[in-house]
Amino acid sequence: MAKIPHRLYLTEEQMPKQWYNLRADMKELPDPMLNPKTFKPATEEELYPVFCEKLAHQELDDTTRYVDIPEEIQEFYKMYRPSPLIRAYNLEKALDTPARIYYKYEGNNTSGSHKLNSAIAQAYYAKEQGLKGLTTETGAGQWGTALAEACSYYHLPLTVYMVKCSYEQKPFRKSIIQTFDAQIVPSPSMTTEVGRRILAENPDTTGSLGCAISEAVEKAVTTDGYKYVLGSVLNQVLLHQSVIGLESKTALEILDEYPDIVVGCAGGGSNLGGLIAPFMQDKLLGKADPKIIAVEPASCPSLTRGRYAYDFCDTGKVTPLARMYTLGCEFIPSANHAGGLRYHGMSPILSKLYHDGYMEAVSYEQSKVFEAAVLFAKQETILPAPESAHAIRGAIDEAIKCKESGEAKTILFGLTGTGYFDMNAYSAYLEGTMTDYVPTDEELEAAFAKLPKIPGIQ
Amino acid sequence: MAKIPHRLYLTEEQMPKQWYNLRADMKELPDPMLNPKTFKPATEEELYPVFCEKLAHQELDDTTRYVDIPEEIQEFYKMYRPSPLIRAYNLEKALDTPARIYYKYEGNNTSGSHKLNSAIAQAYYAKEQGLKGLTTETGAGQWGTALAEACSYYHLPLTVYMVKCSYEQKPFRKSIIQTFDAQIVPSPSMTTEVGRRILAENPDTTGSLGCAISEAVEKAVTTDGYKYVLGSVLNQVLLHQSVIGLESKTALEILDEYPDIVVGCAGGGSNLGGLIAPFMQDKLLGKADPKIIAVEPASCPSLTRGRYAYDFCDTGKVTPLARMYTLGCEFIPSANHAGGLRYHGMSPILSKLYHDGYMEAVSYEQSKVFEAAVLFAKQETILPAPESAHAIRGAIDEAIKCKESGEAKTILFGLTGTGYFDMNAYSAYLEGTMTDYVPTDEELEAAFAKLPKIPGIQ
Repeated sequence: MAKIPHRLYLTEEQMPKQWYNLRADMKELPDPMLNPKTFKPATEEELYPVFCEKLAHQELDDTTRYVDIPEEIQEFYKMYRPSPLIRAYNLEKALDTPARIYYKYEGNNTSGSHKLNSAIAQAYYAKEQGLKGLTTETGAGQWGTALAEACSYYHLPLTVYMVKCSYEQKPFRKSIIQTFDAQIVPSPSMTTEVGRRILAENPDTTGSLGCAISEAVEKAVTTDGYKYVLGSVLNQVLLHQSVIGLESKTALEILDEYPDIVVGCAGGGSNLGGLIAPFMQDKLLGKADPKIIAVEPASCPSLTRGRYAYDFCDTGKVTPLARMYTLGCEFIPSANHAGGLRYHGMSPILSKLYHDGYMEAVSYEQSKVFEAAVLFAKQETILPAPESAHAIRGAIDEAIKCKESGEAKTILFGLTGTGYFDMNAYSAYLEGTMTDYVPTDEELEAAFAKLPKIPGIQ
Repeated sequence: MAKIPHRLYLTEEQMPKQWYNLRADMKELPDPMLNPKTFKPATEEELYPVFCEKLAHQELDDTTRYVDIPEEIQEFYKMYRPSPLIRAYNLEKALDTPARIYYKYEGNNTSGSHKLNSAIAQAYYAKEQGLKGLTTETGAGQWGTALAEACSYYHLPLTVYMVKCSYEQKPFRKSIIQTFDAQIVPSPSMTTEVGRRILAENPDTTGSLGCAISEAVEKAVTTDGYKYVLGSVLNQVLLHQSVIGLESKTALEILDEYPDIVVGCAGGGSNLGGLIAPFMQDKLLGKADPKIIAVEPASCPSLTRGRYAYDFCDTGKVTPLARMYTLGCEFIPSANHAGGLRYHGMSPILSKLYHDGYMEAVSYEQSKVFEAAVLFAKQETILPAPESAHAIRGAIDEAIKCKESGEAKTILFGLTGTGYFDMNAYSAYLEGTMTDYVPTDEELEAAFAKLPKIPGIQ
């Protein structure tokens, strides 16, 4: 076999024309989303006040296996996709491992992450429906940047609620989101009822994704012609993000490779769900049996220590109820630097697959994650986002196991984005002032005790 | 003809195996570098105290047309190259121009710019010679980051003198350079004699590239086993950067295109010299006649308002003398946000070509540059560095001329890097607090009056 190139780019012709809907191949579907008032499965129409119609349809469509990517979105994708599949030759050498390590690198666009894949889709459908504007939340700021880019492209006004601790840690995120004409509000804020309530109860809170979601949803449903969009967790987002996995699989096929292990970081699940989609399909259909690993922060361990239960997607309890691995919607994670992974819940699709034994999960404290990030940066000339570095940590540990066992496994991981806006975190790590935090069992029990009570269900 | 793809990547096989030395095809060579003590042309040996031997040779080699790229450097290049040649379809649409606009995008590596192309070469030769460490200066921080990456790869200690105003404007640059284990010192500093002298004369100075060069050179020549390296201006740097132009030309050939206009930003000339190299060759050999445009800041207009004269490359007057377009080595440019373009001089190769009429130059005030940067970011999903945005401004104005004349010209410009570390500048632009500054004729005359006197020459 010819030497495998360092970086493989598909041609435009090889890029996916359809997204892949994992639910169509699941043996058992995730439990349905429930209307929080009736505790009955939410209908498409019930979602219309919050989501635009096409996206509400995608959210509930469990049967369509492949969804055509609209031409306009395909054209936009071509501006920054295909993303490269990179062989980590130098990392392999540094680890002295027989493993072959590949990573799918999604950081080559100004949002700095994979988030743009779903942002442009959601902005497209909003524009198509003739909406006047959108609202959203952002944690680390990558989703906010991506959606600002997408909305600017379609001249759609956008209000972004940014988790207050990230807003303060990352002033430049504000500038870049404003460069794309979006309005940005630190959350919790006084601009919504739910924000005022949360601030009254806890004036010093630095916010959370769950809390910013509540504010963004309230703002959308109370503003004429506005809808709410979300960058993770939802089924529709995993659908759009399947472009990551589909491209990866095609590229690996060209190299005559198939992953033994697929590793992704998991906050709400957007990247992981997208990356693993076609490999999980093979697993569901009995065609292959790759090991699939979700990596999460030990400070916010929804899969590894959470409950599989119905919960709100937000802190303010305004969203429908989803059955997922959750730490409880009132759980406020510590100020871990991987803001994009500080979410109490997890994609219902991934939660179900994990529950049914199709994937594994592992958690790391952040100092171990940054150790991997710095090693990776030095070897591969890419400075990873703290979120992405969780996947790097997981992949490195699998490669080390290969060294110990002498097995030349093929490892694929998702490098979701770049860390240019996270230099405060890198500084803390380099200066030795980074602290690790792991919630105690008591803290988690206290949060679980506040899970919603649903008659006949939980 | 099939539709031209948005982004063209060469295969690894199509990547250049040799750098191209423009001097070998110049009708008249640039005037020789002079030893500042004897006013005689500097010999290779005279450069050894400052530069490592292979680089000193490349600096003075006017005859070798093509220089083999060492295998190891070719391998490193494959980690982040080839860089894409991108068709700016959306920008064209936004400008409603018949022009076809292409840009060569060098920002897809952690240094965030083209600087890594020469950094890895210089670190390689230093390692090969068994040096103990390197010193350098950095303005905006891109060169410092690139060299830190390259030195970290070869485990070579590195000290970076960073222009004080950039050091203060961009605290995260410090973190990223430290991530790659380099030591960083704001310049002017008390760590060198020349730094102490400059501070004594002007305690409030915010520094300049010329001043940081003086410090880095002094540190190198006074530290055992250390040499100095420079990220621009020098012939050797233009040689390494020719990889940009060579890749661009091959990619355009695949698309059956040839540029009518080539536009690059110009600080010391590293990007511009690399980008234009093979097109300038065609021009020198009479094979084609593209219009070649250097774009510089109006606040530091070395080509458009400077003198073509022998001058020091640094403020402290410790380097050899080069004949180039210069504002005088004591000229301290205003605190323009494009730190990488704040240099008093210009590559002697480019200076000679400009002097002999082979290229044009234009200058812009920074608010006009940021206007172009924001337009570009919104259309093309890449947030450009302020330096790179000068080339965007130039390309946009050429495309607008095409609209007026109805000519469908092919425009190629160099997008040298990303602006993630320049968000203060974007904020200033967005908030309307950005000021433009153009030196008066009197200020320039005062600086010219301090050009060195060289018996029999000037």
